[in-house]
Amino acid sequence: MRIITLLSDFGLQDHYVAAMKGVMLDVNPDINIIDITHVIAPQDVMSAAFVLGQAFPCFPRGTIHLAVVDPGVGTSRKALAASAGGQFFVAPDNGILSYVAQSQDNFAAYEITADHYFRKPVSSTFHGRDIFAPVAAYISRGIDLAKLGPTLESPKQLVIPKLKKAGNSLVEAAVLAVDRFGNAVTNLHAEDLPAFETENARRCEVLVRHRKINSFRKTFGEGQPGEVFVVPGSSGYLEIVMREGSAASELSLKAGDAIKVILH
Amino acid sequence: MRIITLLSDFGLQDHYVAAMKGVMLDVNPDINIIDITHVIAPQDVMSAAFVLGQAFPCFPRGTIHLAVVDPGVGTSRKALAASAGGQFFVAPDNGILSYVAQSQDNFAAYEITADHYFRKPVSSTFHGRDIFAPVAAYISRGIDLAKLGPTLESPKQLVIPKLKKAGNSLVEAAVLAVDRFGNAVTNLHAEDLPAFETENARRCEVLVRHRKINSFRKTFGEGQPGEVFVVPGSSGYLEIVMREGSAASELSLKAGDAIKVILH
Amino acid sequence: MRIITLLSDFGLQDHYVAAMKGVMLDVNPDINIIDITHVIAPQDVMSAAFVLGQAFPCFPRGTIHLAVVDPGVGTSRKALAASAGGQFFVAPDNGILSYVAQSQDNFAAYEITADHYFRKPVSSTFHGRDIFAPVAAYISRGIDLAKLGPTLESPKQLVIPKLKKAGNSLVEAAVLAVDRFGNAVTNLHAEDLPAFETENARRCEVLVRHRKINSFRKTFGEGQPGEVFVVPGSSGYLEIVMREGSAASELSLKAGDAIKVILH
Repeated sequence: MRIITLLSDFGLQDHYVAAMKGVMLDVNPDINIIDITHVIAPQDVMSAAFVLGQAFPCFPRGTIHLAVVDPGVGTSRKALAASAGGQFFVAPDNGILSYVAQSQDNFAAYEITADHYFRKPVSSTFHGRDIFAPVAAYISRGIDLAKLGPTLESPKQLVIPKLKKAGNSLVEAAVLAVDRFGNAVTNLHAEDLPAFETENARRCEVLVRHRKINSFRKTFGEGQPGEVFVVPGSSGYLEIVMREGSAASELSLKAGDAIKVILH
Repeated sequence: MRIITLLSDFGLQDHYVAAMKGVMLDVNPDINIIDITHVIAPQDVMSAAFVLGQAFPCFPRGTIHLAVVDPGVGTSRKALAASAGGQFFVAPDNGILSYVAQSQDNFAAYEITADHYFRKPVSSTFHGRDIFAPVAAYISRGIDLAKLGPTLESPKQLVIPKLKKAGNSLVEAAVLAVDRFGNAVTNLHAEDLPAFETENARRCEVLVRHRKINSFRKTFGEGQPGEVFVVPGSSGYLEIVMREGSAASELSLKAGDAIKVILH
Repeated sequence: MRIITLLSDFGLQDHYVAAMKGVMLDVNPDINIIDITHVIAPQDVMSAAFVLGQAFPCFPRGTIHLAVVDPGVGTSRKALAASAGGQFFVAPDNGILSYVAQSQDNFAAYEITADHYFRKPVSSTFHGRDIFAPVAAYISRGIDLAKLGPTLESPKQLVIPKLKKAGNSLVEAAVLAVDRFGNAVTNLHAEDLPAFETENARRCEVLVRHRKINSFRKTFGEGQPGEVFVVPGSSGYLEIVMREGSAASELSLKAGDAIKVILH
């Protein structure tokens, strides 16, 4: 059974997700459908791109990832099928595959134009059900991506915040995401902070607005109650966290916020 | 593998949904269980009926739909198995199958009385686990519905709001549901509004309390920021929407609310 | 296909649950993954233990239950694999298996030390993905638990509130959990209350703080609107409920709260 994952902003209360699953199972009953999430904030393509970017590397080769956060549905935005690292992706061309594309050398994209794979009639408001779901299911049956349409040379890319080194003593960084626990995932890695190399926490600090964080831990369990500290997260990024509390609430942090690292 | 869908008001925090799945897998391990939703508001049979009515047409023939929103559990309300359009349905007899029954010519219902298919002892408060789940799983093994009990001639039906034409210039309509995005699904179809036939938006308007809506679009993308407009939704019904906003919040709309169409 | 259930406090918005599923499917594509819940309150091991304790008895022999609520991740807390009643369990050794262990005679636990089954490198903050998920998947491939590490004689146990009989006229009891509907599940059984034996409601009453409950019903449907009453719940425990309302809100009840039974 081929695996098809599903990510959307459709929420959990309506029939939208089930409709997509029904359509896929109608095209190919031999699939294993795995939900990534459906509670992306409505139209938040950046968050969707981040979550997909963290989830897909855990899946086996051959997995098909269907990601539908689609504020431009019904407009001229293109529909996209892509491959990278032995996995497949189906999504609107709005940047939702940015983390995938920017992390994989062999990312190849196609514009979906072969409408004989679509569910008819195609609604102008629900391409998830009528275009993306059936196309993902046909890919699970072995259809070659090149049969879906022409190569797309420049799929849309979101700007993922990059580190900016300002001299030897300052790194400008950003919060990429805030998770359920209130952990703020940054775009820093352990090697960017001397604190993690030397275990000498005095050699740097993280600046969030006017608050300095100079506690660096290897695990959550090392943190003290009420302490805000930095820990290497599970995706390789450093995270600003509180043990049994929400660092994001404590510091009013959200995705996109700028932070600074001061190197002494 | 037969598909069994699951719809309930059991929520996501408790063991209730998993208990039903475990019971089904114990009866038939070769099933593919697909959740429709479990966050129907507690005891809201009307919403459950709507969501099921929108989801089931997307599923392939042979699918079994298990729907448990059951305020009358333990009372004399009947248990129901039904077939329609090549699919199967298992539910309490409280109207939850109304959209299915009213949209399908060949709807046939049976009262479930054959208690040798039940999980014993049958709890008086959780027929989902003890009656509906095992019966659905036995249907997936090929049990004929007629073996479950006698034909039920008049399963309970909810009153689904119908259009009322008052002369040539007024249609009384209603909101059937509000989705995650705050889109208000009405019981109007595009053919009920001359605006959609002629693309001349001036020929009619939709009246929500004292607010007039006279903007009619083909897609979400055509809407202007902050504008409330009408768009053909993915189920064939017209929807009152805002682009990147909640029309239901803006207009304080909820399921069951009356709206009017003025034809000029 | 072997069944692996999943229970966590990872929530629904992030990639964590999907990451665990991807890892499991990479080890064994022939598994049927069933979610129990992922919205346990962060770090609430007691609630997780309760929900798992209610769910697992419904699953068939051979099912593997993966439960990750893990405030001690990265510390010296052990990782656990266990068997009981023909089913298997993988979890941190923090008491999350207490309801399973205390209800099953043949509970046998092993400390997971065989790190060649782990996903490398092992993150210090996400053992769910790197240790528990691959180990569960290897168990589904038939690996014997004894190969995972040495027997663990005394896995950690939570204190599950027990009834305390104070003379002939008083039983001290407790609320074990509150469900989505606001039903308060107690640690009382029908046989503890003469009201349920004799159907003479006057012979006892339940005391919640200063409020007396002396209405005892067999089903929800027998309750009157607005009435708080006691009903035998689906897990065998008595529940304090309101019909079409939340008893927990009405009485400000939460898990762990003490209640009393007065026997007259």
